Amino acid sequence: MTMTATQLKERSLLGLKGLSETEIQTILDRAANWEQLPEKINRMLPGKIVANMFFENSTRTRFSFEVAEKRLGTEVLNFSAAVSSVQKGESIYDTVRTLESLGIDAGVIRLKPIGVLAELAEKIRIPLINAGDGNNEHPTQALLDLYTMRKQFGTIRGLTVAIVGDILHSRVARSNLWALRTLGANVVFCAPPNMEAKELDAAYVTMDEALRADVVMMLRVQLERHEGGMISSAEHYREHYGLTAARAARLGKHAIIMHPAPINRGVEIDDELVEHPQSRIFTQMSHGVPIRMAVIERALK
Amino acid sequence: MTMTATQLKERSLLGLKGLSETEIQTILDRAANWEQLPEKINRMLPGKIVANMFFENSTRTRFSFEVAEKRLGTEVLNFSAAVSSVQKGESIYDTVRTLESLGIDAGVIRLKPIGVLAELAEKIRIPLINAGDGNNEHPTQALLDLYTMRKQFGTIRGLTVAIVGDILHSRVARSNLWALRTLGANVVFCAPPNMEAKELDAAYVTMDEALRADVVMMLRVQLERHEGGMISSAEHYREHYGLTAARAARLGKHAIIMHPAPINRGVEIDDELVEHPQSRIFTQMSHGVPIRMAVIERALK
Amino acid sequence: MTMTATQLKERSLLGLKGLSETEIQTILDRAANWEQLPEKINRMLPGKIVANMFFENSTRTRFSFEVAEKRLGTEVLNFSAAVSSVQKGESIYDTVRTLESLGIDAGVIRLKPIGVLAELAEKIRIPLINAGDGNNEHPTQALLDLYTMRKQFGTIRGLTVAIVGDILHSRVARSNLWALRTLGANVVFCAPPNMEAKELDAAYVTMDEALRADVVMMLRVQLERHEGGMISSAEHYREHYGLTAARAARLGKHAIIMHPAPINRGVEIDDELVEHPQSRIFTQMSHGVPIRMAVIERALK
Repeated sequence: MTMTATQLKERSLLGLKGLSETEIQTILDRAANWEQLPEKINRMLPGKIVANMFFENSTRTRFSFEVAEKRLGTEVLNFSAAVSSVQKGESIYDTVRTLESLGIDAGVIRLKPIGVLAELAEKIRIPLINAGDGNNEHPTQALLDLYTMRKQFGTIRGLTVAIVGDILHSRVARSNLWALRTLGANVVFCAPPNMEAKELDAAYVTMDEALRADVVMMLRVQLERHEGGMISSAEHYREHYGLTAARAARLGKHAIIMHPAPINRGVEIDDELVEHPQSRIFTQMSHGVPIRMAVIERALK
Repeated sequence: MTMTATQLKERSLLGLKGLSETEIQTILDRAANWEQLPEKINRMLPGKIVANMFFENSTRTRFSFEVAEKRLGTEVLNFSAAVSSVQKGESIYDTVRTLESLGIDAGVIRLKPIGVLAELAEKIRIPLINAGDGNNEHPTQALLDLYTMRKQFGTIRGLTVAIVGDILHSRVARSNLWALRTLGANVVFCAPPNMEAKELDAAYVTMDEALRADVVMMLRVQLERHEGGMISSAEHYREHYGLTAARAARLGKHAIIMHPAPINRGVEIDDELVEHPQSRIFTQMSHGVPIRMAVIERALK
Repeated sequence: MTMTATQLKERSLLGLKGLSETEIQTILDRAANWEQLPEKINRMLPGKIVANMFFENSTRTRFSFEVAEKRLGTEVLNFSAAVSSVQKGESIYDTVRTLESLGIDAGVIRLKPIGVLAELAEKIRIPLINAGDGNNEHPTQALLDLYTMRKQFGTIRGLTVAIVGDILHSRVARSNLWALRTLGANVVFCAPPNMEAKELDAAYVTMDEALRADVVMMLRVQLERHEGGMISSAEHYREHYGLTAARAARLGKHAIIMHPAPINRGVEIDDELVEHPQSRIFTQMSHGVPIRMAVIERALK
């Protein structure tokens, strides 16, 4: 019954870097299948237990996984560090290992410390699904972004995707970069100098150039992370790197606006653009459920 | 499948103000049906997902809804602001809209800021159930109060109900006032001058007069809200506006004591009265479950 | 339908003190049955509702109960004091009484204040299961410890069990002491003088003697509870009372290492011993689920 390391690796989803085009497209296809089903609750996986282990808070991502799990009929355990003994210094490893000992079938995990998820994946014997790993990867977010683009444009091959904002701290940018390239898209970044990720091999463009892309993906900015930088205020950020109503008016008629949320309205994106006809922000969220159903099914089937 | 605005309004429960006697009695009747069923779990609504969105904490109300939802067989998502990204400044709207995007079928919502629920109801397309809205309304609490009175006295028409305490901040008082009047009861208030709600058109009586009512409903007092008022201490409050054992002895033999809880024992009500033969405090709580089943059924059927 | 006080007492599990050998062995036997079942989810108790009421946080114990409850098919309510109105001064009694009023079938309860659980058990009419009661008892932890020993050695009769560490504050030590003696084991304690529990009638031995036992059960130490004592630092504690790799090398080949967790790695036990071949620490955790299934089944059947 114990999975081999290879089988486990195939069931886990730690990141999109290194995943083949076929592997990614298979997940997107399976999500399309789940999205089309008329019944909300499918209960395809009764008798399975999934633990959502959030060592970093997240409303959106946690609920998206929880809805996906409940639609599949799994039992759900929710762990949030803020109300647990992690506060007492219990290590992340001991918590995950404990949940494994209790007999859970898969773990969804979100954490801040860099490198810990990779270590866990070496030691833990159940499939792990990355729900946000420091500034490394956030694969299910990128998959739902890809799904949204594929549904919008029919194919991802040949699209130009501009990712705008705090690339340096963004796991969303990283996961999208790897997967979009694998699927044949052209990715460009746009960021203030102090928010560039020097180690990523991608072209940086101006805001004007970014507006020519097929997809403009705005990232959440947390200015408190960049004290002393050139961009010193929300107003200043908006002026130089925000998607304002004026800038949005210059987008191609076919182009779409994306954002992983949560949104700083009036900072990286103007309030009135959030539910603009060209925005796919809430559409992205609704795609999160079928994507996560596909990822959990892949882990447990 | 999208509901019209009117249908949605009929399925939501934002308040009791404006609800007809028939609408209220229909909910009470349906609750009576649920209360009589021998099996605990009925699973009448499988495949539905309800989100409990508590932007203000509440043990009692949240669990009462959760038990009702589980008895009906719905899947339940629990959101509590204290452990979510609302801390990061995410707006209430974005959270509710996110949950809607995830495909929930109805939302139970409790919040402090005045006017936000009414705004949400304009923008959100799923039924919303008010579980406590600032100092505006708390309709399911009042419905379970009405249910308790109707069960006790056979009818609400003609009863005199005295509501005693911090009327100014009480959504329970407001919801009860509107609904009790619609059902033909006579409502009187009793409060220290600084806890009166001047905008409500109801008679204020003395504590002696309040004790002559058929129902004496004590409200939770939070003295910290009234610093500098005439009532300066818990002891002082109890002396003038508390239901003491001595005062309770003067109640009519047929009269009942109610309280929405949580209780400040020894402030607005003496400890020994909480489970007194004339108290219906824990009975009220047990009625919360069938009332909420009726309200959720109404939202989802 | 209301249980008599005697029946209720037989269904509740407040402690192991006073339980007969037959009562304890029956629970262990039933757990063995649950452990052997191939299907994870058994749903033997559909339509029942269990509330986990944790007035003191615990990741491990709460999830262990939750997995047990879900495997049995009960609906689960999770209450954690840190996110509830207990903060507002609501008494533990009112919370438990409220949950009882909502129609739950059994309550799992963990709390710090000494004596409160015994008081609750007098007033509450549903079965209560102790999940940790001040420094009094932690019966399900001791049961899973007993289960682990019985499985390892075939019988508990005649074993020598050394419990090492902060006996004074340990409910685990107390529950194990009573139950191990009832089942015929010899229990010895080893502790720094300021961590001895003078009221317990058990022999204290040196660390060297403790290493000769069949089972060495290390307790979590919280040095902050013992300021001003002779043991002034984690390093000092480890030197005198920790299970170091050097000490572990002196254990009998047949002996096992136990710990109720969470673990202070490098204080009461060396990091490398946690998953040592003679350690049963994560095995203990996995036994928690069938033990709690047996205890909940006993409460609800």
